[in-house]
Amino acid sequence: MTVDRGNNGFVQVRYGLGGQTETIKASEAISGGHYPGVFETEGGRVRWRYALAESTAVFGLGETVRGMNKRGYIYESFSTDDPVHTPGKRALYAAHNFFAVVGESGFSVYIDFPGKVIFDIGFENRDEIVVEVMGSDCDFYFFEGRLKETTEAFRALIGLSYTPPKWAFGYQQSRWSYPDESAVEAIADQFEAHDIPCDAIYLDIDYMERFKDFTIDKNAFPNFKAFVEKMKTRGIKLVPIIDAGVKVESGYSVYETGIQGGFFCTDAEGHPFEAAVWPGLVHFPDFMNPKARQWFGSCYHELLEQGIEGFWNDMNEPAIFYTPKGLQEAIDYVKAQEGENLDIYSFFEMKDKMAQISNAQRDYREMMHRIGEKKVSHYEVHNLYGYMMSRSADEGFRRFDANRRYLLIGRSSHIGMAKHAGIWTGDNQSWWEHLKLNIQMMPGLQMAGFLYAGADTGGFGDHTGADLMIRWMQFSLFTPLFRNHSAMGTRRQEPWAFDEKTLAVMRDIIRLRYAFVPYLYSEYMKANLGHQLLHAPLAYEYEGEDAVHTEDQLLFGESLMLAPIYEQNAIGRSVFVPERMAYLKLRRYEDLEKTAPKILSLGHHYTKAGLDEIPLFIRENHLFVLSEPASNIPAMTQSALTVIGFVTDRASYELLDDDGYSRAFERGGLKKTRFAVEKTSDGKYKTHVDTNDAGIGSVTFYIIDAEGKVSIIRQESPLYA
Amino acid sequence: MTVDRGNNGFVQVRYGLGGQTETIKASEAISGGHYPGVFETEGGRVRWRYALAESTAVFGLGETVRGMNKRGYIYESFSTDDPVHTPGKRALYAAHNFFAVVGESGFSVYIDFPGKVIFDIGFENRDEIVVEVMGSDCDFYFFEGRLKETTEAFRALIGLSYTPPKWAFGYQQSRWSYPDESAVEAIADQFEAHDIPCDAIYLDIDYMERFKDFTIDKNAFPNFKAFVEKMKTRGIKLVPIIDAGVKVESGYSVYETGIQGGFFCTDAEGHPFEAAVWPGLVHFPDFMNPKARQWFGSCYHELLEQGIEGFWNDMNEPAIFYTPKGLQEAIDYVKAQEGENLDIYSFFEMKDKMAQISNAQRDYREMMHRIGEKKVSHYEVHNLYGYMMSRSADEGFRRFDANRRYLLIGRSSHIGMAKHAGIWTGDNQSWWEHLKLNIQMMPGLQMAGFLYAGADTGGFGDHTGADLMIRWMQFSLFTPLFRNHSAMGTRRQEPWAFDEKTLAVMRDIIRLRYAFVPYLYSEYMKANLGHQLLHAPLAYEYEGEDAVHTEDQLLFGESLMLAPIYEQNAIGRSVFVPERMAYLKLRRYEDLEKTAPKILSLGHHYTKAGLDEIPLFIRENHLFVLSEPASNIPAMTQSALTVIGFVTDRASYELLDDDGYSRAFERGGLKKTRFAVEKTSDGKYKTHVDTNDAGIGSVTFYIIDAEGKVSIIRQESPLYA
Repeated sequence: MTVDRGNNGFVQVRYGLGGQTETIKASEAISGGHYPGVFETEGGRVRWRYALAESTAVFGLGETVRGMNKRGYIYESFSTDDPVHTPGKRALYAAHNFFAVVGESGFSVYIDFPGKVIFDIGFENRDEIVVEVMGSDCDFYFFEGRLKETTEAFRALIGLSYTPPKWAFGYQQSRWSYPDESAVEAIADQFEAHDIPCDAIYLDIDYMERFKDFTIDKNAFPNFKAFVEKMKTRGIKLVPIIDAGVKVESGYSVYETGIQGGFFCTDAEGHPFEAAVWPGLVHFPDFMNPKARQWFGSCYHELLEQGIEGFWNDMNEPAIFYTPKGLQEAIDYVKAQEGENLDIYSFFEMKDKMAQISNAQRDYREMMHRIGEKKVSHYEVHNLYGYMMSRSADEGFRRFDANRRYLLIGRSSHIGMAKHAGIWTGDNQSWWEHLKLNIQMMPGLQMAGFLYAGADTGGFGDHTGADLMIRWMQFSLFTPLFRNHSAMGTRRQEPWAFDEKTLAVMRDIIRLRYAFVPYLYSEYMKANLGHQLLHAPLAYEYEGEDAVHTEDQLLFGESLMLAPIYEQNAIGRSVFVPERMAYLKLRRYEDLEKTAPKILSLGHHYTKAGLDEIPLFIRENHLFVLSEPASNIPAMTQSALTVIGFVTDRASYELLDDDGYSRAFERGGLKKTRFAVEKTSDGKYKTHVDTNDAGIGSVTFYIIDAEGKVSIIRQESPLYA
Repeated sequence: MTVDRGNNGFVQVRYGLGGQTETIKASEAISGGHYPGVFETEGGRVRWRYALAESTAVFGLGETVRGMNKRGYIYESFSTDDPVHTPGKRALYAAHNFFAVVGESGFSVYIDFPGKVIFDIGFENRDEIVVEVMGSDCDFYFFEGRLKETTEAFRALIGLSYTPPKWAFGYQQSRWSYPDESAVEAIADQFEAHDIPCDAIYLDIDYMERFKDFTIDKNAFPNFKAFVEKMKTRGIKLVPIIDAGVKVESGYSVYETGIQGGFFCTDAEGHPFEAAVWPGLVHFPDFMNPKARQWFGSCYHELLEQGIEGFWNDMNEPAIFYTPKGLQEAIDYVKAQEGENLDIYSFFEMKDKMAQISNAQRDYREMMHRIGEKKVSHYEVHNLYGYMMSRSADEGFRRFDANRRYLLIGRSSHIGMAKHAGIWTGDNQSWWEHLKLNIQMMPGLQMAGFLYAGADTGGFGDHTGADLMIRWMQFSLFTPLFRNHSAMGTRRQEPWAFDEKTLAVMRDIIRLRYAFVPYLYSEYMKANLGHQLLHAPLAYEYEGEDAVHTEDQLLFGESLMLAPIYEQNAIGRSVFVPERMAYLKLRRYEDLEKTAPKILSLGHHYTKAGLDEIPLFIRENHLFVLSEPASNIPAMTQSALTVIGFVTDRASYELLDDDGYSRAFERGGLKKTRFAVEKTSDGKYKTHVDTNDAGIGSVTFYIIDAEGKVSIIRQESPLYA
């Protein structure tokens, strides 16, 4: 064990060779220091313990079940393809080993390790955190300070987060599946017919030729390049899926080049490891091998050349339906039971044998990576697989065009992946509980660096109702990834899939999303460049037990607070207002100026909101910016902005923007517009706009005062810097 | 179709032969009338539709998932042994075909039918209820009026609900399993050592000899009768489980007498139907046959003779692990896949074939009952099986002792069963969501007549945390059945299974339960005799959208309101107070007089409550009664009662009691004590107690006034009537 103190105040505790996840550059750790809690080592594992005071809360751990405050349960980092995210599941698809302790002494911890880590956050013993690393090479990083500071320090250390092109902040429509040209066009037609904005339509596995990565089913899409182009002229990007496994099929070029290069994971004997997923038997690219990453990343080029600008990387835990060996053993087991006088425990064992064929730990142990000169069992580095797949894609994109941003979301993830891709939160269900989970998960994902994130809006599995769909849309409207996605066999959930009333409400929500894009995009840029959370728990900004224990509200950027409604048949909800705020009920962009605001004092309030109403809270002396909706992001202009604010003294807001597609923002290439409002001594408001953005046109200020009275001030032209 | 108007204002719509569930005596329906909605018949099914206004709520449907307001989902009455009660499950163990429409025009509906019924409560179409009866013989009963009136009318029609002996209102401890004498004694020792009251310890399947009904494993319990007696002297009743299936084993008397009598369900050829459950192969008693019911009911006598006073009837959906035919087909299917180049859909089909062996609809179709002279497929009368099993037990008990009440709870149920037994809500999970479900389910269960009901406190499946355990205990403290039960392989959850702090809190909660028994028992009697709800939604007593849409609070008897905390790490909760109330935070019986009450006005409030505090609300000008806790119900006395009230004018409370074991209460054999408090002109209180119960001793009045000030008045002796 070595202890180092880093440049910006963190303490690094290293066991063995350290974590080796390439999340943090090792050189950044330099000198010794103290850390909270105690370490133990036992049987090749490293364990850290920390005593919890009764009032202490714990935030983080990213993609996990249960509340924002993780206290009271055990979580596991061990990526799993399990679509039933019930509260008893310890592991979902991701390994987000970062959490913050918010109590009398605040600090955060990052556990840098590629394999399984178990986090007992006051479950076995209510008053103790026990983190158990299932290996002897790992790094613990400790950051002392409050939630906000420590998150910032950690995020600075892992580097800038992935930023998609601006069109990826538009509404995106998905379904397993829109399998061919006519299905895709029918969807685009509906968006047009109903005057609903949309920027992307997703292609699930059926667009491929028999589920083979980087192929196109020629029957479904006879001229894919032309079709991609045609859809783009309609304002729609196509986003194809790429699965981790490469079909074993002689003559299939990805398979052949993978075999030739020795790019696949192997079994113990060195033969390519075989498992079955959607295409039937596949080999898994050895994404731990830089050459394999380069090879696979370059495979995306063919689709980029056909005009594709975004991808989703799926099945990369990796999901294994079965291995030939596992299947045969299960079949043999079943056969052996035949004719036996099966007692009931043997019966269950047989049933379980068949059920447990998929994603078997044994298979993960037997699959091998080549890391440098060593063969390493996949089990040891399991949590890096999705990360390295998306890294492979991202590096491939950069080789294709060093300056262009592409949409990339992955299912399985590790914190190290946050610089390469965003995530969706996997195969959730059409349950109100999963809307709540979506809300509660956002801060943890962003603490882990995943700013571009969102859930399958409306729920992937199970059948959704119109009311759930609407309430979920009302939340996703505020998340960077806003994608409506659902599974084969479930009720359709496109905006027009319900009734006329629901269609109208969903249209209004999606149009509001576009109106919010300037603020969302600007706050995204700030959160990324400043290592902040875009969606934060109240504890991020406010102290006191009410703020710390509010788990169903989010600060959204610097000016707003969200209190989404996530319960069926609710006509309102209880809200903790952590400082005086203005409360608006949003319905439609067009009605904004008709909405009568209400001023809420610090404290608990009950606010009503009908099924077509979205509660929104504006912080005192803060502003936010809306633009006119358009049918897609490229069609939007800044020629008529609305600035809404709750101003009792003075407020200003800096709106960031860029070209929407290049990496120039990383080098300071941002357009900036500053909006300012000041209350003058006669009780009126003075407004000011200055900008280096030639696109900014007229600005309407909609300013709420301490009594809830609204002043509307139109400023025809800003001051160009 | 015939339409009749009943004696007490209901309208009966009959199709074919009617429902034939023996829930309601047919003679009670007498003349025609009008009913809401419209009927359609199609393909041998009867469908009823009703248009919903936006603000209309729907209560009822008993044991189903989701909120108290059932609107927005589809539910099925088709009893199923499915332990994973996620929000997407349409059917649980029960068929409670009664619901109330609470809107501009209020009414309730009971669908009398023994088979599958589908209730679409605004799911496919948000604005419509569609009830589909999967058969052509059924009765619909419509009751016009408000929730309270229609529930009362319906409950009057189905008759008095099951009432257990008074000891069954004590705390009950269960686990799968306490398998032998020493395990049971160790549990009793712990209760004594920790000074925690307890009235019953449950015996799960392992007490039997190889899971054979009505047998005792002689190794585990060498002298069962003596052991039952010994435990009783310690104040503990043993409650053995009885499963539906009877083991096929030659020489086993229950099997032999069942075969001799022709008392088992058969296959199409008339051979006893074979299926495997815990004992391996079993036959299912044909509970539809009165003679079989008589035979099975008499089997309980042997255990009654050994001193047993209560049972739980389980696995009576009936659960089928497999049938030999279904198993062989699945094995054949698996074998046929061997060596095939299995495509991925065939693989899933194979996996599903194995998973779907259990509780197969096909098996239910092939199992036959004898009803009168006819053979009827079990599928057609599926929902009556658990009902008829518990009826068989209840009728057996009455033959054993016509005047004595025994504890009887069943898993699968139909409304007709409410007069014979109580229920537990089946194999829930240790999830906060299931604590909430427990709260939200109570009114629906009671609308269906199941007053004696409760959930497995702490959760049956999955591992529970100390915090969940405590919060769940804080709710179950107020439910008639208060049983801590958990599954094999899950974390232990007896009161001492966590830490010292949790043990102390759980002890205080259980002791409070005993303090509440006089009120609970009295209100139970009133709810039963008066056809009322013991746990009611606010809409039961209050009008207005806030009351109707409050779904996580319960009126508890005539004087109290509950607002349980059911979220992890919560430090309080939002409460809608529907009229001025006094608010108490309960901790320990001993601290009651130290608790400072707070008066809350009509409206929404946020109330804090630590993990060891229970929010309790007293209605204005209402009283409730507590007694001193004791180590079990028989040990309790009424010699020192506490009457707590919120009195701004005058209030009275009638406490009902009886001998605790006989059926005399049905014939008016109740002890009655009237407590009265009146505020006098000088602002003081005048108290009064009169009673026909010689056991009533001193009474301490703890009266809260409109300012929250407490007056304590001790009255040494009541006025005996």
